[in-house]
Amino acid sequence: MKLYIGNKNYSSWSMRSGVLLAAFGIPFEEVKLRFDFSPDSAWTREIARISPTKQVPVLVEDDGFTVWETPAIAEYVAERFPEHAIWPREPQARARARSLCAEMHAGFGRLRTLCPMNIEAFFPEVGAKLWAEDAGLRANVARLEAAWADALARSGGPFLFGAFSAADAYFAPVAVRLSRFSLPVSDTAAAYRDALLAHPAVEDWIADALREQDFVPEDEPYRTGR
Amino acid sequence: MKLYIGNKNYSSWSMRSGVLLAAFGIPFEEVKLRFDFSPDSAWTREIARISPTKQVPVLVEDDGFTVWETPAIAEYVAERFPEHAIWPREPQARARARSLCAEMHAGFGRLRTLCPMNIEAFFPEVGAKLWAEDAGLRANVARLEAAWADALARSGGPFLFGAFSAADAYFAPVAVRLSRFSLPVSDTAAAYRDALLAHPAVEDWIADALREQDFVPEDEPYRTGR
Ligand SMILES: N[C@@H](CCC(=O)N[C@@H](CS)C(=O)NCC(=O)O)C(=O)O
Ligand SMILES: N[C@@H](CCC(=O)N[C@@H](CS)C(=O)NCC(=O)O)C(=O)O
Repeated sequence: MKLYIGNKNYSSWSMRSGVLLAAFGIPFEEVKLRFDFSPDSAWTREIARISPTKQVPVLVEDDGFTVWETPAIAEYVAERFPEHAIWPREPQARARARSLCAEMHAGFGRLRTLCPMNIEAFFPEVGAKLWAEDAGLRANVARLEAAWADALARSGGPFLFGAFSAADAYFAPVAVRLSRFSLPVSDTAAAYRDALLAHPAVEDWIADALREQDFVPEDEPYRTGR
Repeated sequence: MKLYIGNKNYSSWSMRSGVLLAAFGIPFEEVKLRFDFSPDSAWTREIARISPTKQVPVLVEDDGFTVWETPAIAEYVAERFPEHAIWPREPQARARARSLCAEMHAGFGRLRTLCPMNIEAFFPEVGAKLWAEDAGLRANVARLEAAWADALARSGGPFLFGAFSAADAYFAPVAVRLSRFSLPVSDTAAAYRDALLAHPAVEDWIADALREQDFVPEDEPYRTGR
């Protein structure tokens, strides 16, 4: 099983799938396609061959069978490895976990647009300015706090549904954004953010990202170089 | 089981869940919350009480258990009613169906922004103008054509995975948009669009929408009245 990913420093969707597989110890070959959106780059050539949407992540089986889109990858892996509780085992918790993942998949637009993932960078001043100016960003973070607090109160933590699940993998890049942009959050949300950042699969991803030392202008609204 | 929905004329996400339940004959009580985004409206009061995201659709069980977000509703219903092939029974087809739904959930941005669902209206001139001017819209439709053609070639049709599944419910509002904005599509895509529009659950939804005779300014970029 191959998982095609983008730059670990920038690619939040790749991170969700990569952290999920790693967290459950599922063996896979990671294939990194370096972001380079020029017409004749390796990315441009390869991604068109591999991914129906020309995006990462993409999971490809040995026989060429392809699953694209992060949530479909999570469901596929959950079915293929039923011995792992990729989703919470309790049906209502599982439904809530999927509701949260779906909300993340299409929502939190201001957070995602204004505070793109950039693991190696630190933007506290940008974060403070955005926080002061953008009501949509504050609303996104308020919703995160409420959603996390609800799930954590029901489960007792440390992860949203107790043990680490696909829902936590989904919020790992959010933990990075909150941290890198120093956005103010409640104590409960801060503790969960830190639990995510300290999970071994997340730590490994972050360590790899820091080793990349790459600069992709399209993913850098706030820096002109490294 | 209650399904809270918005106006049938406008609410594409409500349509996906409502058509899915109806297509499989799953009994549920439909509760319509009329869109009215003024601060003291029934919508504003009720939606905040019922939905964690303040959006429809929301599925609520008799004991108050709530599932929000269209894809989570589909997964929940598929688990609760395993006698129905909500998802294709074959694992690879099921993974592809989920990939397509996830793509729809967060993608096709230009089509969704420029050609919002409005069942009772007909905008061929607007459609022609948008088509000529907007490369993103054309790219969205090209991707739809490719995705549909691939699934239909594998399954033999008439629906994406043979029999009607959650993936078809997901594309029902797209069939409405293609039709109402008269967007040009391949013969294969046109045949599938028409198969969707002729499905009894879709026909019933459309008939109900036509009876609403309501006008929601926030959902009307191209009309000033009915
Ligand atoms: N909805 C997709 C989102 C994937 C996505 O946006 N991937 C980004 C990297 S994080 C990408 O491939 N960007 C390159 C491009 O869009 O050209 C998913 O769930 O996987
Ligand atoms: N990602 C959500 C989208 C739901 C959505 O956007 N619902 C619209 C109606 S189609 C809504 O409730 N709009 C009201 C609002 O956002 O205030 C889902 O999958 O259910």
